[in-house]
Amino acid sequence: VAVGIGVLGAGTVGGTLVRRLIEQGSVITARTGLELEVRRVAVRSLSKARPFSVPAGVLTDRPEDVISDPTVDLVVEVMGGREPAGTLVLAALAAGKPVVTANKELIASRGPELFAAAERAGVPLLFEAAVGGGIPIIRPLMETLAGEQIARVLGIVNGTTNYILTRMAEEGCPYGEALAEAQELGYAEADPSDDVNGTDAASKASILASLAFGTWVDPMQVYREGIEELQPADLVFAADLGYAVKLLAIAERLPGGVSARVHPALLPVEHPLAGVRGATNAVFIEGSSIGELVFSGPGAGGEPTAAAMLGDVIDAARELLAGSEVAPSVRFGPGEVIDFGEVVTRLYVRLEVEDRPGVLSRIASAFAEASVSICAVRQEGRGDRAMLIIVTHAAPEAQGRRAVESLRQLDVVQDVAAVLRVVGEGE
Amino acid sequence: VAVGIGVLGAGTVGGTLVRRLIEQGSVITARTGLELEVRRVAVRSLSKARPFSVPAGVLTDRPEDVISDPTVDLVVEVMGGREPAGTLVLAALAAGKPVVTANKELIASRGPELFAAAERAGVPLLFEAAVGGGIPIIRPLMETLAGEQIARVLGIVNGTTNYILTRMAEEGCPYGEALAEAQELGYAEADPSDDVNGTDAASKASILASLAFGTWVDPMQVYREGIEELQPADLVFAADLGYAVKLLAIAERLPGGVSARVHPALLPVEHPLAGVRGATNAVFIEGSSIGELVFSGPGAGGEPTAAAMLGDVIDAARELLAGSEVAPSVRFGPGEVIDFGEVVTRLYVRLEVEDRPGVLSRIASAFAEASVSICAVRQEGRGDRAMLIIVTHAAPEAQGRRAVESLRQLDVVQDVAAVLRVVGEGE
Repeated sequence: VAVGIGVLGAGTVGGTLVRRLIEQGSVITARTGLELEVRRVAVRSLSKARPFSVPAGVLTDRPEDVISDPTVDLVVEVMGGREPAGTLVLAALAAGKPVVTANKELIASRGPELFAAAERAGVPLLFEAAVGGGIPIIRPLMETLAGEQIARVLGIVNGTTNYILTRMAEEGCPYGEALAEAQELGYAEADPSDDVNGTDAASKASILASLAFGTWVDPMQVYREGIEELQPADLVFAADLGYAVKLLAIAERLPGGVSARVHPALLPVEHPLAGVRGATNAVFIEGSSIGELVFSGPGAGGEPTAAAMLGDVIDAARELLAGSEVAPSVRFGPGEVIDFGEVVTRLYVRLEVEDRPGVLSRIASAFAEASVSICAVRQEGRGDRAMLIIVTHAAPEAQGRRAVESLRQLDVVQDVAAVLRVVGEGE
Repeated sequence: VAVGIGVLGAGTVGGTLVRRLIEQGSVITARTGLELEVRRVAVRSLSKARPFSVPAGVLTDRPEDVISDPTVDLVVEVMGGREPAGTLVLAALAAGKPVVTANKELIASRGPELFAAAERAGVPLLFEAAVGGGIPIIRPLMETLAGEQIARVLGIVNGTTNYILTRMAEEGCPYGEALAEAQELGYAEADPSDDVNGTDAASKASILASLAFGTWVDPMQVYREGIEELQPADLVFAADLGYAVKLLAIAERLPGGVSARVHPALLPVEHPLAGVRGATNAVFIEGSSIGELVFSGPGAGGEPTAAAMLGDVIDAARELLAGSEVAPSVRFGPGEVIDFGEVVTRLYVRLEVEDRPGVLSRIASAFAEASVSICAVRQEGRGDRAMLIIVTHAAPEAQGRRAVESLRQLDVVQDVAAVLRVVGEGE
């Protein structure tokens, strides 16, 4: 029996997926026993050239036609964004059609509602490609690790920013130049805001934390900082101190609840994520039984993302043919999301200060008064100014911030040039 | 509704799994909605102390009681070895009970028969822990990558040998000493033969190749070489040339069919598997759409292996409760398995030769006569003898072997001290 596929959106990922479903149909059938037939594809413009050819009547510019088409058994959503994607996904589920999506924004912001709709309908809602593009990470988290007590997930989940940081670290490019290069190479969008300010990674942190800990973490609860303020100098100093700087999505189980956040972080060079270069994504999972797992691969791009979605389509089609009511593999229970201020962090602070007697002592006092203990100091004279790098021991983030606020008030401090966090050591 | 679990074997992995099912039952229920109840556990000795406590009547020394117990809905096999495990697994499947196993030897040697039995019974047969212990690799291969055209899988799938090779490379330990140390630390069995001679890795290569390419590759068709003959000197020379030496399980899709093999290999230091140290396992997957994926984590040990099996148990229990007939996710078609002699390889050959005029020319002729082209030569004088290292360009393995055979016949060659293969460059 053939399974009718409807696709919402035919951009880079959607177009690639449709092309593969058409061109590799017989290979997929030989491999899985499934006949997957593309029956409707919703596009914005009917006249635009596509990387695939379909019979007349398959293309439509009305996405609701895809959902309501009785020959469509399974819906693939690759429009992106919250709306109309959300309404369409809910309509598909309500019609009893399994949904496969790569829409991290939608899943992160409305996960519980969407999963409840899927459960009511008894059909799967799959989203392997929503985090880590082509890297199998969602399914391992939801299935293989369903019984595992996960302590921490660290992810390099945004290829654009990792590409920029790699260029800044390896070539000393300033941020703006590295970004322009990423745009030229197609790693960054014309409007890269959501990538560089951490919004994209925050959606993924929300999904990773929710799946890892079984407590839904809304993206609004994810603390975020981007990479726009980073200077190549800090990547150089970090390297001198034995760290690589990465934009991390962090999900942690802490005594009082769950923390999810996105910020640039200094990772010890020997950490498995420290060596992840360019647009590659990687996810590090630490669990009480499992120890440390690392997954890495292409985090974006039409081909890898479409490959992960194809895996979901195959799985959803199998479940559909089995005809059973599918129970969700993870349930979400209530749980606290901890404010970032209460999370224990270690700070890397770079200051421009006046180079005269007593300066270091006043700076050290500011940390001491906030009960933040200093771990390492580096000072470099530059005429009548000095550059001072301070790495602290672990203390609640709010205390660290208080120390930094006091520093800003000191007349001897000309600039708080960078405040970053150190991650991945003896936590 | 509770799902009754029967466990065959309660050694390190089985004991850990039973303990976790008992101690973490409520956590698992909160997370997944499933009640998993351990109802029968087959052990060899009823009197031995166990890391878990179960009510009277749960332990039995007759494994067939576990299968036939009507309160057992799902069977976990952790006895290992081909028999009686094979008979018991088939009996469980015939009784309509899903089976979860970590038994790579059984799956590799009788996979098609077991999968057919599972399909007839309409129940799942899951084996995530059979390769890579706690690393989710089987499910990603079978599901997420079901639609992917995989070109090559390279795996460090035996922790014992990787630990030994790491010690040899980093400390210059001779093989015997590193092995003794691995045994002391519990990384190697009292009888380590199956690990060090490549048999364990060959079972895993057979499974990886079969799942990656959809053609069942029997372990008897997997070419294997172990690490017993490796000398620390070769690890040093390899490092000088920019390579790490790893025991690899290799599965490749070649124009004429599939190749699966296990042998020590020189990997460029920049290859993602080159830096995998100690008992860690890692699997590298290359596919036409997916590019390169790497999975790494703990390859063995009670806790990680039990964690992966617990994920399978949860999944199998879900499918059981859904009550549907489960179609297998991968089908195996006919296909050629290519003899290793026909596979194109690059050789690293280390020779002890007489240090006199004309020696290099005679050695070069031996390669030329076998139509194997030389890529790099290093010679080191040692009095009246010299050590010669030759790295070849790619040529069919059989031609390389012919060249090595001719070298053995040359009176100027005192010893062919090492023949290794170079992997992971421009293939």
